[in-house]
Amino acid sequence: MDGRIDLASALSTFDEAWAPRTVASLNDYDVRVVKTQGEFTRHSHPETDEFFLVLRGSLTIKMDGGDVELGPGQVYVVPRGVSHQPVSAEGAEVLLIEPSATTNTGDTPSELTAERRAV
Amino acid sequence: MDGRIDLASALSTFDEAWAPRTVASLNDYDVRVVKTQGEFTRHSHPETDEFFLVLRGSLTIKMDGGDVELGPGQVYVVPRGVSHQPVSAEGAEVLLIEPSATTNTGDTPSELTAERRAV
Repeated sequence: MDGRIDLASALSTFDEAWAPRTVASLNDYDVRVVKTQGEFTRHSHPETDEFFLVLRGSLTIKMDGGDVELGPGQVYVVPRGVSHQPVSAEGAEVLLIEPSATTNTGDTPSELTAERRAV
Repeated sequence: MDGRIDLASALSTFDEAWAPRTVASLNDYDVRVVKTQGEFTRHSHPETDEFFLVLRGSLTIKMDGGDVELGPGQVYVVPRGVSHQPVSAEGAEVLLIEPSATTNTGDTPSELTAERRAV
């Protein structure tokens, strides 16, 4: 039946880092997959928490209060308003869940700001 | 730093099937892990979609429109109001995301209805 999403298959359709793809909706939230590589813009989301689940590789979320190191099967929810910088030296594949209106660079738009985009 | 959740570790703390544990909050949503085994109550959630990601094992979501078979790394979002019966012959470990007020049996309370509970 339609509607099942294989996350690895979705991730195999693109290579670009820091460019989330929306694979499903959950009410007014987006389920997104993203590849991370290198350093992202430090930013916050004043309106919302942000859910991260690492599927493959490793991701560090740098924050003033300390860093969170995530490997496969590990989750962290960045609280709303908390400044954070995702960094991924080795690269990672990550599942993100956040309100559909959320942009990747939050309050710090840059050339890394991505449009909402499906796979 | 505190706040990182290892999903396999959270799942290792209990054995009971169909008894979700809330491991984190995302705004007014819960991030839950659950073990599935056998047949669950057929039910719907009139107020919300429901996110399923299978982490281990296999889960079938039976619906009038057809069944969805999920293995590791596969996602399905059950639309609000759609009657569904989760069935898991071999057992599975599943990540659920849904509004915190959502109960597992939705509109069909039974002895399987679980209180909201942390790990």
